[in-house]
Amino acid sequence: MQGLMQDWSMTLDRVLDHAKIVGPDREIVTRSVEGPIVRTSYGELWTRARQASHALREAGIGVGDRVATLAWNTARHMEVWFGAMGIGAVLHTLNPRLLPDQIAWIANHAEDKILFVDLTFLPIVEKIAGLMPTVKTYVVLTDRAHMPSTALPGAIAYEHFIAGRPTDARWGGFDENTAAGLCYTSGTTGNPKGVLYSHRSNMLHAFAANQGDAFGLRAKDVVLPVVPMFHANAWALTFIAPMAGAKMVMPGAKLDGQSIYELLEEERVTFTAAVPTVWLMLLSHLRDNKLKLSTLKRVVIGGSAVPEAILRAFEEDYGVEVVHAWGMTEMSPMGTLCSMGPQQEELSHEERIKLKLKQGKTPFTVEMKIVDDAGADMPRDGKTFGRLLVRGPSVARAYFKNEGARNPDGTVLDAQGWFDTGDVATICPMGFMTITDRAKDVIKSGGEWISSIDIENIAVGAPGVANAAVIGVYHPKWDERPLLIIQPKAGETPVREAIMQFLNGKIAKWWTPDDIVFVEQIPLGATGKINKMALRETFKDYKLPTAA
Amino acid sequence: MQGLMQDWSMTLDRVLDHAKIVGPDREIVTRSVEGPIVRTSYGELWTRARQASHALREAGIGVGDRVATLAWNTARHMEVWFGAMGIGAVLHTLNPRLLPDQIAWIANHAEDKILFVDLTFLPIVEKIAGLMPTVKTYVVLTDRAHMPSTALPGAIAYEHFIAGRPTDARWGGFDENTAAGLCYTSGTTGNPKGVLYSHRSNMLHAFAANQGDAFGLRAKDVVLPVVPMFHANAWALTFIAPMAGAKMVMPGAKLDGQSIYELLEEERVTFTAAVPTVWLMLLSHLRDNKLKLSTLKRVVIGGSAVPEAILRAFEEDYGVEVVHAWGMTEMSPMGTLCSMGPQQEELSHEERIKLKLKQGKTPFTVEMKIVDDAGADMPRDGKTFGRLLVRGPSVARAYFKNEGARNPDGTVLDAQGWFDTGDVATICPMGFMTITDRAKDVIKSGGEWISSIDIENIAVGAPGVANAAVIGVYHPKWDERPLLIIQPKAGETPVREAIMQFLNGKIAKWWTPDDIVFVEQIPLGATGKINKMALRETFKDYKLPTAA
Repeated sequence: MQGLMQDWSMTLDRVLDHAKIVGPDREIVTRSVEGPIVRTSYGELWTRARQASHALREAGIGVGDRVATLAWNTARHMEVWFGAMGIGAVLHTLNPRLLPDQIAWIANHAEDKILFVDLTFLPIVEKIAGLMPTVKTYVVLTDRAHMPSTALPGAIAYEHFIAGRPTDARWGGFDENTAAGLCYTSGTTGNPKGVLYSHRSNMLHAFAANQGDAFGLRAKDVVLPVVPMFHANAWALTFIAPMAGAKMVMPGAKLDGQSIYELLEEERVTFTAAVPTVWLMLLSHLRDNKLKLSTLKRVVIGGSAVPEAILRAFEEDYGVEVVHAWGMTEMSPMGTLCSMGPQQEELSHEERIKLKLKQGKTPFTVEMKIVDDAGADMPRDGKTFGRLLVRGPSVARAYFKNEGARNPDGTVLDAQGWFDTGDVATICPMGFMTITDRAKDVIKSGGEWISSIDIENIAVGAPGVANAAVIGVYHPKWDERPLLIIQPKAGETPVREAIMQFLNGKIAKWWTPDDIVFVEQIPLGATGKINKMALRETFKDYKLPTAA
Repeated sequence: MQGLMQDWSMTLDRVLDHAKIVGPDREIVTRSVEGPIVRTSYGELWTRARQASHALREAGIGVGDRVATLAWNTARHMEVWFGAMGIGAVLHTLNPRLLPDQIAWIANHAEDKILFVDLTFLPIVEKIAGLMPTVKTYVVLTDRAHMPSTALPGAIAYEHFIAGRPTDARWGGFDENTAAGLCYTSGTTGNPKGVLYSHRSNMLHAFAANQGDAFGLRAKDVVLPVVPMFHANAWALTFIAPMAGAKMVMPGAKLDGQSIYELLEEERVTFTAAVPTVWLMLLSHLRDNKLKLSTLKRVVIGGSAVPEAILRAFEEDYGVEVVHAWGMTEMSPMGTLCSMGPQQEELSHEERIKLKLKQGKTPFTVEMKIVDDAGADMPRDGKTFGRLLVRGPSVARAYFKNEGARNPDGTVLDAQGWFDTGDVATICPMGFMTITDRAKDVIKSGGEWISSIDIENIAVGAPGVANAAVIGVYHPKWDERPLLIIQPKAGETPVREAIMQFLNGKIAKWWTPDDIVFVEQIPLGATGKINKMALRETFKDYKLPTAA
């Protein structure tokens, strides 16, 4: 027997429709790529998104067609976003931080039909346009006055593209499982893989992300998404801000400390979100200029683990609550949030700081568990490592065009529908998860797992050490044992014994590296992380002294 | 093209699964019907709900079967609730405040197969059991020690019913549109009509209800649902408290001021919800005993309009934020909430109090509009009255067994899918809705609408007046004009001229009643509201002095 409630397809256009009704005058403020601060409203954004829909239709875009953007967070990007999704097209956010060839590869793989590009990235696109035969139309996100001369075939200014278009484009009316967005993960091995969000998955994700212990936005909030829209939907903020009717502040191309500070203060921002790097820049600007944050209440930090110094600075020096979050593109991206619950009310400040360095708990809709290599569930004791598996309506079941398929049907899940995050983690009895390593970097010693990251974080504090990396190398008895690789500080010559002494007592005895090697330069990847693949290649035949 | 995210059916068992994982030890505290305060947890409640599922299956209950409850808010009621919904049965909450014959009529209409009854209501059920042939099993919500001797055929104590049952009953795995709950509206005309919620509609409703400007519960909240579970899912609290992992405090049979006060203080309640009558009792208890509320932060008041005295008492005397809410069983029940937004931050206290008497704004998923009798949209100017229509995923499209159908397919919606609430309202430019009357009670004078309630609210303050009612009576020129019916205070004899004088300047000239009549007793309905149908019948041939 079925219920007798109304049919209501979960399509994302409803989010902007709602904002237009409950907050037509609520502002979206953008630091425009052209320079000045520009102000629009949900009412106006709705109108212009409808015009964008109409213009997209005229450009031959229909349900399922990929609409690419190479753009900063701006109101115009939001217009294209909802304009494309509203008519069932797939908004594909290209990541401008990739190499031009990678961008072209991804645009081709996605078969993008039209590309909206910010002035900043026009030189990139000019360079690779010849490599993207599927792209038939180029729209530059500016007005005619700022339109540069360009070699792009038939490039048109966005304001011209939508000017005078009617607002009667029909939104929604298609299946809620229709694809809405496409976002590629860079990945460390193989080609980039596309995560294909649906209207339903993004809406359920938005609902989950906007619960009280997650982002819990209210209409009176002022939200500054520093996290780019090309990073997994700006962590849902592009959906939940209009859902709540909150004011939005879009930083455009300027993410430096001073620019972000100006927006935070001048627009009276209450809620913001970004990766740690952004906050390092902001905190440095605050300190150098002896500034305060007068309206900011909460900051979500994700993308990589929150450094303790950033956590303490926000909470202790500026009175801003930090919400440590973890997720991945394949999770839309929310996985866990480190919100304090009833069991944390009695904690001391220092205990809370320590707890907040964990990645946190799952909100409703997300399930997680840790397993060993054989797939057996591992205990939630806060100590045992396991591969972190996740499940839920906003977790990928497959990649676009079945890249990286693990099953004949193209999916990447196990038999119970779990997605392997590639991370290794612990889960404590209260449900707080801590990422301890990437699965491929964990060292498997005699059936037990050793976290390379934990050792690195300690070793980097040893005297004379500029950077430290730990990899597992072959050991005849234990399968693998840790090798510590040290890059000395310029002009210093740290010695093996002093480092071993430094580690002593700070890590478990059996985690102690079996050897230390010194290198001039530890290789880094494109995002600044240690390139362990390269290290493993370099040291693949390394003979440990303990292996005799 | 479809998205590639995971399949995840929106079935309500997931809510309790989640609570068990993130808050296994979080308490559910009940003032038991037997007397003592009893404590359980989400972990234990999950186990017992699973046992209830097993026992229901053994009693022959399967997908689509109606499982009736005649019960207070208790942990046991929650167990039956999730135990039934988890296996796809339909949890039918009977309203014990109806007359026994009405309860029997409704149980028969619903074809309930099993009935769970609290000790309090056992005498009712014993009286009507013979009238409910579809009910095959009676379970009394108590343990064997408290099980009275009863004439009910085969009645069994709940603790015996679930004792020793395994916890392996499979939950979910059916279509999310499967019926989950059934709740009858009493209605003022015709037979009661059943609203049949689905798993999907209840889950989307819970998501919407738990947004920041709605209930926005957090794990650290302690929630006291005074509003009964038999009133439209306790306004979603039975779903969103476990969704958030919040502690629940269940008041059982005792809703008097002292009992509620004890729970609020002793269990450190932060959030509660009920109809105004309950709060009158609590406030009276607080005043009489000079008590304070030390932990309560927010109170949701709905079911009928919030009287100004209650609003002021909570906000001014006790520092508790009032959220005025409006809804109806057919809306699951949430329609609007009077949360303060960005435009209200500059308001003075008095302006906020005035605004909070309005029914409020729609959360995401709910749409509303006002129309005239011809169905044309009316302006959102805060003045123009219109019939209030609503739409959304948690709004009924039809009643059980197609009662009250307006269309050949059994639905009750108009061509654009709108549900007519039967209320007349205004909507102000900022989106705040105010109920001005029931559609059938509004007086239509020369094409303009006059609110009977507005005049009554003022007239009841005139000297010597105990109660006042206003109905429309025939007028040859204006179609209808208002007739004011006055019930004098005992021993007093108010006169026509004094009342007219009192009204003068307080209402618009053209709203002034054309006549006043005095009666000994204004007829009231079962819920204490004025029975206007009876008044219209009494005065159907009344000749107004202005009608000459």
